[in-house]
Amino acid sequence: MPMLAKLSVHASRNKDLRTAQRIFTTPEVPLYDYVDGFGNICTRLTMPTGGITISCGFVIEDRFEPDEVDLGARQASLAELPDDVLHFLLASRYCETDKLTDIAWGLFGHLPMGWGLVQAIVDYVHGAIRFDYMAARPTKTAWEVFHERTGVCRDYAHLAIALCRCMNIPARYCTGYLGDMDLPAVIGDMDFSAWFEVWLGGRWFVFDARHNFPRSGRILMARGRDAADAALTTTFGAVTLSRFDIYTDQDCLTQD
Amino acid sequence: MPMLAKLSVHASRNKDLRTAQRIFTTPEVPLYDYVDGFGNICTRLTMPTGGITISCGFVIEDRFEPDEVDLGARQASLAELPDDVLHFLLASRYCETDKLTDIAWGLFGHLPMGWGLVQAIVDYVHGAIRFDYMAARPTKTAWEVFHERTGVCRDYAHLAIALCRCMNIPARYCTGYLGDMDLPAVIGDMDFSAWFEVWLGGRWFVFDARHNFPRSGRILMARGRDAADAALTTTFGAVTLSRFDIYTDQDCLTQD
Amino acid sequence: MPMLAKLSVHASRNKDLRTAQRIFTTPEVPLYDYVDGFGNICTRLTMPTGGITISCGFVIEDRFEPDEVDLGARQASLAELPDDVLHFLLASRYCETDKLTDIAWGLFGHLPMGWGLVQAIVDYVHGAIRFDYMAARPTKTAWEVFHERTGVCRDYAHLAIALCRCMNIPARYCTGYLGDMDLPAVIGDMDFSAWFEVWLGGRWFVFDARHNFPRSGRILMARGRDAADAALTTTFGAVTLSRFDIYTDQDCLTQD
Amino acid sequence: MPMLAKLSVHASRNKDLRTAQRIFTTPEVPLYDYVDGFGNICTRLTMPTGGITISCGFVIEDRFEPDEVDLGARQASLAELPDDVLHFLLASRYCETDKLTDIAWGLFGHLPMGWGLVQAIVDYVHGAIRFDYMAARPTKTAWEVFHERTGVCRDYAHLAIALCRCMNIPARYCTGYLGDMDLPAVIGDMDFSAWFEVWLGGRWFVFDARHNFPRSGRILMARGRDAADAALTTTFGAVTLSRFDIYTDQDCLTQD
Repeated sequence: MPMLAKLSVHASRNKDLRTAQRIFTTPEVPLYDYVDGFGNICTRLTMPTGGITISCGFVIEDRFEPDEVDLGARQASLAELPDDVLHFLLASRYCETDKLTDIAWGLFGHLPMGWGLVQAIVDYVHGAIRFDYMAARPTKTAWEVFHERTGVCRDYAHLAIALCRCMNIPARYCTGYLGDMDLPAVIGDMDFSAWFEVWLGGRWFVFDARHNFPRSGRILMARGRDAADAALTTTFGAVTLSRFDIYTDQDCLTQD
Repeated sequence: MPMLAKLSVHASRNKDLRTAQRIFTTPEVPLYDYVDGFGNICTRLTMPTGGITISCGFVIEDRFEPDEVDLGARQASLAELPDDVLHFLLASRYCETDKLTDIAWGLFGHLPMGWGLVQAIVDYVHGAIRFDYMAARPTKTAWEVFHERTGVCRDYAHLAIALCRCMNIPARYCTGYLGDMDLPAVIGDMDFSAWFEVWLGGRWFVFDARHNFPRSGRILMARGRDAADAALTTTFGAVTLSRFDIYTDQDCLTQD
Repeated sequence: MPMLAKLSVHASRNKDLRTAQRIFTTPEVPLYDYVDGFGNICTRLTMPTGGITISCGFVIEDRFEPDEVDLGARQASLAELPDDVLHFLLASRYCETDKLTDIAWGLFGHLPMGWGLVQAIVDYVHGAIRFDYMAARPTKTAWEVFHERTGVCRDYAHLAIALCRCMNIPARYCTGYLGDMDLPAVIGDMDFSAWFEVWLGGRWFVFDARHNFPRSGRILMARGRDAADAALTTTFGAVTLSRFDIYTDQDCLTQD
Repeated sequence: MPMLAKLSVHASRNKDLRTAQRIFTTPEVPLYDYVDGFGNICTRLTMPTGGITISCGFVIEDRFEPDEVDLGARQASLAELPDDVLHFLLASRYCETDKLTDIAWGLFGHLPMGWGLVQAIVDYVHGAIRFDYMAARPTKTAWEVFHERTGVCRDYAHLAIALCRCMNIPARYCTGYLGDMDLPAVIGDMDFSAWFEVWLGGRWFVFDARHNFPRSGRILMARGRDAADAALTTTFGAVTLSRFDIYTDQDCLTQD
């Protein structure tokens, strides 16, 4: 069964790798990478009957600093947006901006443009949605999250992205590693995390509606319009994920 | 109010133009083109208060032959698909493949792969959906079309695209000019039309679930994953379309 | 006779246009644009026998400020350079880095990396080459400029680009409008001008070895590895340029 | 010392790999891949002082059929050429079309367009140039090859490419593996080989001015305008290549 895996670190982090990053499988099968239009490194392979174990290990350097905050980052007018950013204003599979526009303007239309508007959207989503692993499903959209009020990190991101786009702020979905090293206590089993980015002040800034405070140590793996573009694995047929482990550890560098 | 218009002939038809193609507006406003990732020529402009008239005229050469049929075109296995075609298997705003997979396999899973499978999907959609201008709405998705059983050419295309993707056949949305010159009788007011393309036999072929027979004289304007990518105009705010005219006429060339 | 014309303003300046920019020809012939890998807007057309007049008029807004100077802009190490910038370190038709490396290191190898190194190269080229319209020829390369010591703005640029690349500084060729509005006296017949850009401090900066002081009002038309990529017109066969006029005029905006 | 290596199989052959293809180094250093505008997989790494051993092993499936010949492949007129092919008509570092145009038209201007014209160019180059490893140098251009009449496979390719471009036939440089399995006798030490491709009949065809007969088993590694784009390794500073081994072996598949 063919499989598309986005299990590598995103191409934008290539220069931070301190070892080569190689994907190995058991049993060994042919595989190759290509880079999609979002800079995601996509690995194509065919799962043998009997299943496959895929592993990828690497050492990466990270500044381990909290997500940047720039309260003064100016929101561009629509006419100012670069051509290749416009794409991130459109409706996408899990972000039905066409259905949420009136809601978004009702909730946020009185606020001034800019950083504060994004923060208000993130505060809203963070407060309105109750985290619940049991409420996750692969077809869940921003519209459904808005009405059901439950979800996981992916759902927080989708709703926040859709609302930002409705307010004419380009937004894109991100997924990757996010450890617990910046948290006071160790959390249990690790999973990949989802967050999002918005275009403010002429660049992309990270926001995280699930956690709603600046986190450290995000390692981006895939990015796109929403989770449809950034699925870590896409299989074309029925597959059972039988086990899933993420190990992360850290080492401190003394900067020269 | 900013506007994104895909009112030019698609870049793939540039060589068929027999005059320059220029977009003019009244009043005159600054505008410029860029080409998006689907080869669509996108015009950016800002509508003045008071509204704007946009016009575009050109002469284009077309072979005026019916859509090509190749019953033997082989359906590639998933592993064979080129990297840049995979994109057209994924879920998109108006084509919820994730929700329609079981339905698609229930309806078509017994059929052999290939041209006949696509034709069966097109026959099904053509037969199941009743054309109704009154049933159109901008948020309507393939899933909704499937359940409501009504729609316009865009809806026929979305449902057929979603079903093809569920069956692992890459499919993409197309919109453009389609005159009545190949029809026995003149139809009334013209509109742009929507159809779709599937990847079979190593290339893209046109299918049209609205008409379900090979038409002549399609002039492609925009293409994408679905209507979200290929909207002829996208405005960011409330706009009224007050009038809309398409004139087409034909002249026969004697081929040398 | 087919022709490729890069007579539009470069895509990076599209947002500064205050009128639409349209290319007209007499007689009228079919033409269309595409954008090449350097962001150049390329117009394809076929010249009729009897010749053609091509014209393009537009109003563009420019800050009319001198080329930016940042003495502290840091020169990236080779390992730090982004992937898509590496290309501008390689040898190209008119910039034979492979032949000039020893010369470059002999002249500049003792200097610290950074802005000062580029300025030293520009000072050298500006001083070593004598401007002479009569010494121009389409096949002249940086190596030949170095030995002949004469040239026009294109030749100054080629030699400076080649020397920068030899010193591991990415450099690219630029051509476009450069009026005389920032000069004390009106100069005579206008021509297009050539300058270049180097990658320092994580972005591109303009340098001009012909003039060697910060000029105002550059309007970029085409960019590339050297003049082979950025020729304003490329014809495939013998053509006579019978007349060539550039009119520029300025209007001052009061910034809001 | 930073290094750019194009030691992987070209992305167009990814689907033929029957094992994963991984580059290993001794000592182990960080490295990553990107894909350039020609589809070349480029590996970036930094050589440690003391040197490095780079190795890459893989199994690839190849039809092992002689280069395709299509005497009827039509030469497109310039106006018909696709936009992204035009690039391969321009002058480049080692193919000075601007200096060779008169020579090319003098030699081949009387011939009809098409396959036969390319074959005449290849015959000419094959006959005029004497193979001589001692006559190779990294700065040697088509113009120099034409006058010196000696060279290696790279030089044969450069002269043939330049002459094709002068005759308005797009041509691009290729390098990769070419074993001796299709030859009657084993040849000695193996090296990578260079050949070229021309655009005829709406696609690219392989020609080889060094061997001048259809060879089997080419495995493409890198492609570009000339050897400047397709160098298998580019180092930025002085490096000694101390050893260089290529092992190839074959296994026959029974096709299903």
